[in-house]
Formats: sequence, structure tokens, C-alpha cells
Amino acid sequence: MLENKGQQRTDISSLGEFGLIEHLTKSFEIKQPSTIKGIGDDAAVIAVENELVVSTDMLVEGVHFDMSYMPLKHLGYKSVVVNLSDIYAMNALPTQITVSIAVSNRFPVEALEELYAGIQAAAHHYNVDVVGGDTTSSLSGLVISITALGQVTQEKAVYRSGAKENDLIVVSGDLGAAYLGLQILEREKQVFKVNPNSQPDLEPYSYLIERQLKPEARKDIPALLKELGVQPTSMIDISDGLSSETIHICKQSKKGCNIYEDKIPLDPQVITTCEEFNMDSTTIALNGGEDYELLFTISSDDYPKIKANPSLTVIGHITQESEGTHLITRANTKIPLIARGWNPLQEQETE
Amino acid sequence: MLENKGQQRTDISSLGEFGLIEHLTKSFEIKQPSTIKGIGDDAAVIAVENELVVSTDMLVEGVHFDMSYMPLKHLGYKSVVVNLSDIYAMNALPTQITVSIAVSNRFPVEALEELYAGIQAAAHHYNVDVVGGDTTSSLSGLVISITALGQVTQEKAVYRSGAKENDLIVVSGDLGAAYLGLQILEREKQVFKVNPNSQPDLEPYSYLIERQLKPEARKDIPALLKELGVQPTSMIDISDGLSSETIHICKQSKKGCNIYEDKIPLDPQVITTCEEFNMDSTTIALNGGEDYELLFTISSDDYPKIKANPSLTVIGHITQESEGTHLITRANTKIPLIARGWNPLQEQETE
Repeated sequence: MLENKGQQRTDISSLGEFGLIEHLTKSFEIKQPSTIKGIGDDAAVIAVENELVVSTDMLVEGVHFDMSYMPLKHLGYKSVVVNLSDIYAMNALPTQITVSIAVSNRFPVEALEELYAGIQAAAHHYNVDVVGGDTTSSLSGLVISITALGQVTQEKAVYRSGAKENDLIVVSGDLGAAYLGLQILEREKQVFKVNPNSQPDLEPYSYLIERQLKPEARKDIPALLKELGVQPTSMIDISDGLSSETIHICKQSKKGCNIYEDKIPLDPQVITTCEEFNMDSTTIALNGGEDYELLFTISSDDYPKIKANPSLTVIGHITQESEGTHLITRANTKIPLIARGWNPLQEQETE
Repeated sequence: MLENKGQQRTDISSLGEFGLIEHLTKSFEIKQPSTIKGIGDDAAVIAVENELVVSTDMLVEGVHFDMSYMPLKHLGYKSVVVNLSDIYAMNALPTQITVSIAVSNRFPVEALEELYAGIQAAAHHYNVDVVGGDTTSSLSGLVISITALGQVTQEKAVYRSGAKENDLIVVSGDLGAAYLGLQILEREKQVFKVNPNSQPDLEPYSYLIERQLKPEARKDIPALLKELGVQPTSMIDISDGLSSETIHICKQSKKGCNIYEDKIPLDPQVITTCEEFNMDSTTIALNGGEDYELLFTISSDDYPKIKANPSLTVIGHITQESEGTHLITRANTKIPLIARGWNPLQEQETE
């Protein structure tokens, strides 16, 4: 990415492990009062007043991201976001992250600076401290492993297992855009291979591409629910598609559900692009993944509190377990939900 | 490793991400009372009564380990140990870990079962719960990223920065064996390449090989110090060699030191093997790394409490910063300590 720009290339081994970590994190500030000790000792030390929430995710080059259209700064930002999304899904507030990176020697220090600039931007935006990590070489691609810590009071914590019969199923934002953004980027990559001088007009897909390259975690939703006086009965973030996540909630709550096709929130760009690609927008919303919206259930008594809110859409309701998990189509037929979510263990294309 | 034994080979993609995690962790027990929610939600939930301690380490195939002589079960065990060692170095008690793994499709499920058996054995031995993680494919080698959590009271936490002038420098166990174990394994690998039927006699190196393949974290030392009524003024674990770690303590404490060559504890196998390899045992102890012993400083007033203990050796003392960091040789010459510790960012051999 940087190779063609005639920029400086500093070899990462020239700094050594500690020198590199120090160099990459020197401008990172500690802002959380709960961070007693950040980077620089055997371990970070953190004050925890409520319950601690911990989540971890690993992103692997060629599996989770393609460096040919994922700018390193965006990649750093997204790596943090996907982890924080899990913390918000517990109705918790993220406070710290650790960042471990394995990187091949083909990356100069300047490339890692870009990556860390993205990590720093996300840490700043979501108000979390980077308190530790590890930087090592890899024999091939880039691997990013982030662990996010957050805090929540016992009575506010929301699990996947708490959905009750007749609860309403609610989703934030809209679905399917991130997956379509990936399809657009893949298409442009193929076009670029044939004609490196093509100047694609990506304006009609701007929202889709942004959702893929620079997703945000819904930090506003736990805050909004608190403001509205709504305590969700269960919650999960949508990383693998609505279908897969709904099934998780139902399975862990030992319940069934009906999701209504005509209620699933879609952005106009999703609808027009699905028409262009001759894809079914419902299938994309159900199985696309990477939306990082929150899916949760609330007591039907709380419906008046959320009904007017433009960020929230009621898409169905919880039933008895014996009724199974279904989609009610626009034609009013009932079809079982299937978790077709992306499987990161499938054979990947290697180019 | 398993390929030649005619054992079962189940493709990892056949289980899917959630199926695989469930399969690998189903026999893991939750034993820590502080684990409120382990694997199975967006995040784990943990009760923290004291201060939380967090450390993370990433191990990369071909950089940190060689699968040709590292059995997967040992690898799993060691991956946990290296992380817990950092928690003990804070004088804290480890309580939970998360385990993320990127693995190529050349690994069958049975290989991952071996790896997780090692992780489970370590979790059992050190009494920590596995509360989360991630399993994904990789386009090449195996990457293991572990985050360890522990707890410590505010007054017991020990940082690298607390060493005072005239404090004694103490080390647990003995040094240099793990590095020599690696040299032996590398030598046998080369011999095996030339003659696959050779039956090497590894008995004279048994301690060295064990220190390399199955290191233990010194969980006994914080407990021992508590029993002896000794609160270290600073502490660090020896992962990169005595020299590098001593410099870390001195730098962060803004102090100098004198280490006495004749005091450095060496196992008899280290001495005989150094003679055989024509290596200087002091150089190996100073720069070898991977010993996972604890290096700490104590007030000289505490000397009577530790002097008779076979697990602890006083190797030097802390001086003013202006005096620098030195080794006093057997010939009574003073030479500067240099951090020649292993650099995981150096170009690695790729075979």
C-alpha cells in the first residue's frame, strides 16, 4: 500500500520488540480513571467497581480482511470496533483493550503506524485505553488479536439467555449493507485486475462501502435504552447475520420466535444494489453479517417507550420453544430460520 | 504429527466456528467463584473484588515454536504458562484466560483436541478458568493468542518500578536451561533430517528439554514470599533473559545494579552442556530467555527471611542510577549488562 508512494520504509526489526511497542503507542493517552497501570509492566492493572466483561476476537489477513482494499488505518479501527461491539452487547461500557499483532517483515514501521493510528482513533472515539499487547513477526500474513474489557453493574448486564415468551425482538439500525459493501469491493478488485486505470463510480454504494470498511459499534444504544428506561431481556451483536444471532438468543433462552420479513430494516442502497446484483435483500439481511448492530428482546410492556425511535425497529416476537424459529414472509408463509452465517473455518481462497 | 499414525482426521470446517469451540471446550470446567459467565455469550462476566491484572501474549508458528519437535499438547500447556507467568510477576493470582487460535485447514480436529488438552491441563494445574476465545482459519501457520486475567490487592501488587538503592536482587530457580533445551532440539532435528532412524540419547539433557517443552510458571513464589512475610519492591518474569529483565527493572525504577557472575544459579546440566557446546554458561543465563523464573528485589532488611530458601538466590544489589547496570565477573571485572534478549521481530528462517 505504501510501497508505491516513495515514502520512508523503516524495517521493523531495527526497533526491536520493546522499541516498536513503545514507538507505536507513545502517543496513546490513558484517560480511563480505572486504568491504574497501562503498557509497560508484566501486566496492566485495572480498578473494577462493577462486574468485569471480557471479549476477544482475532482477525486474520486473507480470512477476515483483504489488504488490497482495506486501508491499514481502517483495519485498525475496525479491529477495535468488532471487539467493542461485543461489550455493548452485554449492555456494558468498554474501558480498556489489549492489542496483539503478528506481522511479516514485508510491513515497514510506517505501515504499522497507519494500523495503530486507526486503533488509536477507535480508542479515542469509544473512550477506551490501550493497556497492553504484544508485537511479533509472522512468517506470512497479518494477524490482529484484540481483547476488550468493560464494566457493568450486576443488574444491568444482559445475556443471550434472558428472552421471555411474547417479548418483542428489536434491532438497531439497518442490515445487510456491510456484506454488500464487501461484494462491491470484490467486484472492483476484479475490474482493477483487468484494467488498472478504471475509475469506478462508487458513489451509489458509498453507504455500503463505509459499513464494510469503517463499521461503528452501537455505543449509543445501551445509553439510549437507559435513557428510555428499557432493560433488554436478552441481547447479542449482529456479526454473523440476523438469522444466526436470532437463533443464538432463542437457543440460549430456550424459546422460539417469529421474525417478519417486511419489518427487517434495509437502507435504500441495500435495496437498489440487491436489485442490481439480482440478490434477495432478505437473504442478505438474514445471512450477510458484519453489520455490528444490536439485536435484543424487550418486554412488550416497554413497546411504547421505543416505538417512536428511528434507531430501533421491532422485527418480531419470542414464542414458546416448541414453535421453533421462523421467518414470516411478505407472502405470509412461515419458513424456518437457518444459520447460514459466514464460517471462518471454511477453506479460503488463496491468491 | 498425527498424520503418520493412521488416526482419525476430521476436517475442522465440518464443525463450524461455534461447533468447534463447543467441541473443544465442552469438558472445560468453571471452578473459579469469580467466573459469573464463561464461554457462550458475547463476553465473559467476572466478579472482581481486588485489582484486576491483565496480560496478553501471542505465539506464532515458525517464530515462537517449531511443530517438528513441539508436541501440540505441550504447546497448549506452554501457551498458557507464558501468560500466567506475567500474572505471577505482578504478585497476583491468575483466575481466568481467553484463548484465540488461528489454524490452517491442514490441522484436523484431532490435532486441535491435543492442543486444547494441553490448555486444559495447564488451566487445571494453575486453577484458572477458560472463559472465552475465538477459533478461526489461517492461510498458513498456527497462531495462539492468550489473555490472562488475575487479581491482587492494591497493597500486594508489585511493579517493575519499585526497586530502591541497596535492595537485594533475587532470582527463583536456575537460568539458561530452556535456551539450551532449544539448542538440543534443533540439533536433533538436523540429525533426524540426515538420518531418520537415529535414536538419540537425550537423557543427559532431560532437564533442559523439559524446561523448553514444558516450562512451569512460578506460582509457588508469590505464595512463598507471602508466607515468609516478604513484599518485593519490584518484580518481573524472565522471558527474554536475565540481562534484559534486570535492565527493565533498573530503567523503570531509575536505578543501577551490580549482578555477580558467581551467584547466578545454574543447573549441573547447563554447566556440562555448555562445556559440550563450547558456550559460556553466563552468556546463556544472561541472554537465553524462556526460563519463566521470577526476578525481584527486596529490602536488605528482609535478607534473613529468604537466605536459607533453596528456591531463591541473591544475585546482586541495586545501586544509584548513575552507577549504571553491571555484571561483576568471577575475575572481579565490571562489564556493562547488555540486553541481547531474543528479538521476535528479527528475520526468521523459513523452511
